[in-house]
Amino acid sequence: MLSQTVTVSGTALQKELQHKIDHKTKPIGALGRLEEIALQAGRIQQSLHPALRNPHIVVFAGDHGIAAGGLVNPFPQAVTAQMVLNFIRGGAAINVFCRQHGINLTVVDAGVNFDFTELPPSSKLVDAKIGYGTKNYLEGDAMSMEEVNKAIAEGKRIVGELSHAGCNTIGLGEMGIGNTSSASLIMSFVTGIPVEECVGRGTGVNDEQLEIKIRTLKEVFRRHLSAIAATPGALTILQKVGGFEIAMMVGAYLEAARLGMIILVDGFITTAALLLARTIDHTVSGSCFFAHTSGERGHEKMLQYLDARPLLNLDLRLGEGTGAAMAFPLLQSAILFLDEMASFESAGVSGKE
Amino acid sequence: MLSQTVTVSGTALQKELQHKIDHKTKPIGALGRLEEIALQAGRIQQSLHPALRNPHIVVFAGDHGIAAGGLVNPFPQAVTAQMVLNFIRGGAAINVFCRQHGINLTVVDAGVNFDFTELPPSSKLVDAKIGYGTKNYLEGDAMSMEEVNKAIAEGKRIVGELSHAGCNTIGLGEMGIGNTSSASLIMSFVTGIPVEECVGRGTGVNDEQLEIKIRTLKEVFRRHLSAIAATPGALTILQKVGGFEIAMMVGAYLEAARLGMIILVDGFITTAALLLARTIDHTVSGSCFFAHTSGERGHEKMLQYLDARPLLNLDLRLGEGTGAAMAFPLLQSAILFLDEMASFESAGVSGKE
Repeated sequence: MLSQTVTVSGTALQKELQHKIDHKTKPIGALGRLEEIALQAGRIQQSLHPALRNPHIVVFAGDHGIAAGGLVNPFPQAVTAQMVLNFIRGGAAINVFCRQHGINLTVVDAGVNFDFTELPPSSKLVDAKIGYGTKNYLEGDAMSMEEVNKAIAEGKRIVGELSHAGCNTIGLGEMGIGNTSSASLIMSFVTGIPVEECVGRGTGVNDEQLEIKIRTLKEVFRRHLSAIAATPGALTILQKVGGFEIAMMVGAYLEAARLGMIILVDGFITTAALLLARTIDHTVSGSCFFAHTSGERGHEKMLQYLDARPLLNLDLRLGEGTGAAMAFPLLQSAILFLDEMASFESAGVSGKE
Repeated sequence: MLSQTVTVSGTALQKELQHKIDHKTKPIGALGRLEEIALQAGRIQQSLHPALRNPHIVVFAGDHGIAAGGLVNPFPQAVTAQMVLNFIRGGAAINVFCRQHGINLTVVDAGVNFDFTELPPSSKLVDAKIGYGTKNYLEGDAMSMEEVNKAIAEGKRIVGELSHAGCNTIGLGEMGIGNTSSASLIMSFVTGIPVEECVGRGTGVNDEQLEIKIRTLKEVFRRHLSAIAATPGALTILQKVGGFEIAMMVGAYLEAARLGMIILVDGFITTAALLLARTIDHTVSGSCFFAHTSGERGHEKMLQYLDARPLLNLDLRLGEGTGAAMAFPLLQSAILFLDEMASFESAGVSGKE
């Protein structure tokens, strides 16, 4: 990969990129969506030689007050912390896929209901704990406005540090028992799609549990509707029904886009965070590649709302950034063909007659 | 990756694989299609520890008599040889993606209308030339039955040698100006779908050229229909309207499946070869993973006919095995999660309540 950066602006760059793509030894358009990726990556980096440097997946973990009651989640709340320890030890799916693709993994304690202070520094867990889980939004606000702002600032800080260390490509992931509920509520508040169409099985509720989950979340929606209508926007939604890891991802998206990073968007919860980030800065999506359509009900409608065409459709519904990690090699392929493929001229291949 | 091979048979193996998958630290089924891949790979290799060893993409190149007239193809026939030289020099898309994923690339002269004898041995081009292109099937048979059999035998030999050298995972690719026409005819003869629904734009014919292509291929279809009806089967179809590279791929599929290899099926032309291989041994598809849905018209219907669910849908329509190369990391992800992910027990993660 060439490391030189050619900065050309706007339409001129777009044209030069298209010219470069069209003169590779292949029929026009034959690399399909890879060509779109190459164009978009070039546009994001304002370069004819876009490059993916020091790629990271950042997994934000947080607990949810609603989960303590078990009304919306089949797994106990303790699993959030247990999975963070699994990430630290390298045994989770996201560890496997990051190792496979040479992606660095950063795990952030955004607000897990567990004390990780006794972990050795070698664990590299980033301590950005806002609290020991949110409050139960069935009974009140999930968090204070101070916590919302602190979480967003922490997300920005973490991404800023990665960028400073040379990372220009980032995928966000999350872990948090109960966070599909928060994401469903956010989706409904932002898009106006009724709650029942935004709620899915999460980690795997059965039919009866799904009914309870929907009923519970409709109640939460009604409870907070007037306050959100009175002061609409991402901050209020986060305060009422958000999660620490979700708020932190909102900050992460905003900062990554501001810094010109390439962003890989994962599944249902990470896309919910993006919905909020867009209400703060609608240009964020221009920096995003949508990795996959999740098997979690609601994600497809979210993607339609965003007018996004995801790269993969593998019925994944795991979170952790796993879909983002799996889509990473496709981004890489696009970058590589753009710089490494011969042109008709350089290869002495005839064009169309 | 563990290298031990555990051989268990049939249902018992299936159950043990499913048990292994279900006890990984993730909700049941949350890795979606990767879980299906892991199951199928384990079944193909009869092992709880399937592994992808020494993976290869083999690109078979051949010329087509029909292409000399330019009735069906916008690029001149000479491009087949030029692209073979591009493969040898490492400048084509398939070179880029093979390098990216650590896949070995083998290029085979199955019957290109060019003399490669002056290439240095370091070029590693496999000489399996059946002839200098097929004959024009508008005027007679594409090849003799002797050539059909020789090509199939060569395909088997090449795959046999790769397997002997330790390769257990193979993707087939092709290059041959005019070969979407041959593939369309094969598709129509095997599936019974009318020619006009099997013909697409190939390397990029315009509307007018497409009409000529369809008209030409309908004429070819009519010309050979009675002979194929009289002696139905893959061999006759290859003799009448096949290509050397397609016949060789038929042999390659048969041998790869017989040897228990994992097969990655690429796009329109390679799937047409599979349609033929299946008429000789219908169990071949059990060894196949379908990499992607090509942008070439007809491929989707082929896949439906095969009841295949491809892994990617990126509007690729390049051939060369590029889709197979791009799907390879997904196979790898499936194999890796199966062996590397922690179980609930080993990671101390709680299950559902």
